Amino acid sequence: MTIDVEQPVRRRRPADQVRQLALECARRLLLQHGPSAITLQAVAGQLGMTHGNVTHHFGSANGLQGALAEAMIRDLVDAVQAALAGLRAGETDVRDVIDLVFDAFDAGGAGQLIAWLASSGHRDRLVPLCLTVAELATTLEHPAVDQQAEARRVGRIISAVIVPALGAALLGRELAGALRLGDDAFRVLATDQISTIGEEQPPTL
Amino acid sequence: MTIDVEQPVRRRRPADQVRQLALECARRLLLQHGPSAITLQAVAGQLGMTHGNVTHHFGSANGLQGALAEAMIRDLVDAVQAALAGLRAGETDVRDVIDLVFDAFDAGGAGQLIAWLASSGHRDRLVPLCLTVAELATTLEHPAVDQQAEARRVGRIISAVIVPALGAALLGRELAGALRLGDDAFRVLATDQISTIGEEQPPTL
Repeated sequence: MTIDVEQPVRRRRPADQVRQLALECARRLLLQHGPSAITLQAVAGQLGMTHGNVTHHFGSANGLQGALAEAMIRDLVDAVQAALAGLRAGETDVRDVIDLVFDAFDAGGAGQLIAWLASSGHRDRLVPLCLTVAELATTLEHPAVDQQAEARRVGRIISAVIVPALGAALLGRELAGALRLGDDAFRVLATDQISTIGEEQPPTL
Repeated sequence: MTIDVEQPVRRRRPADQVRQLALECARRLLLQHGPSAITLQAVAGQLGMTHGNVTHHFGSANGLQGALAEAMIRDLVDAVQAALAGLRAGETDVRDVIDLVFDAFDAGGAGQLIAWLASSGHRDRLVPLCLTVAELATTLEHPAVDQQAEARRVGRIISAVIVPALGAALLGRELAGALRLGDDAFRVLATDQISTIGEEQPPTL
């Protein structure tokens, strides 16, 4: 047990709040300076906490980056679920949902962060965020006799957005420029493919 | 001018050969240890050259990584062109071409390397390799009245392979696992999409 000595900056905060503040700080660092700027030291410094306190919550810089990626994907999944409700109500269209995901990967920084984890030997950090994505499947599945076929159909719909959104976040601008395509070419492609898969008859008999 | 003193290891090699050897060495480092292991120091050490000599050819580690990515994409474009000839001769099918590209990005390491460059603030290095990809377009274009429309169609075909191949190389295994899809789900999706775009009537009137 330690005795708290009152300090103007390094006051004790509840664990959940520390975690939340650290993730918000990490997100700002990502957007301003890229994934490599997300370090325990930088977050501790900006929050006026000790390095040890941040380490206690995330273990390592990679742990912090992985936790941020997971939080970003969870926010995205929540936003997509809201957008899908709009889609069913006729208030939004498929392209709106595509834009939401592509924006999160591109301007939102998720693509850069995932690319950083995948290319720096920390693919294990990607598993929890893929499981979060998979939760979205339960929102999309229709009741069907052939549940395995339906799960595959929904998985293909999700994959047909996530995978190109990641690729486009990393290489889209340069590739569209070289091929003289519009900046939204990859979004149009994804919209077309989703529509094709979506029209496949879900097996309801 | 310098006078060569005979040395057992650090003998002088022609510039092209040095460049070629360095790229081969960098490729081995990529496959064995990932993109961050591609440093001027490591390459110089393995080839028995001075750090300065390798620096002279590539400028920096990022220069070397960019040159390797470009060389890998050039090899890929050559291989795709050969595969397209086989496709026209009826010896291969679209899926074979898709596998070629996806393998180059995944097991071949191109995806990791591009992700590394994109997420570590060196997107400028991606421009030359996208221009190399764009050269492939000239192989695919049909003579057409509406040349702009034809160029867009071909650009979309290329994008519909490259972009998901990059995304799948980084996140494919984990995402397919979470969604209970087969390992080749993203290749099947790309094959379907290519077939759809390919069937669009090129305007020949």
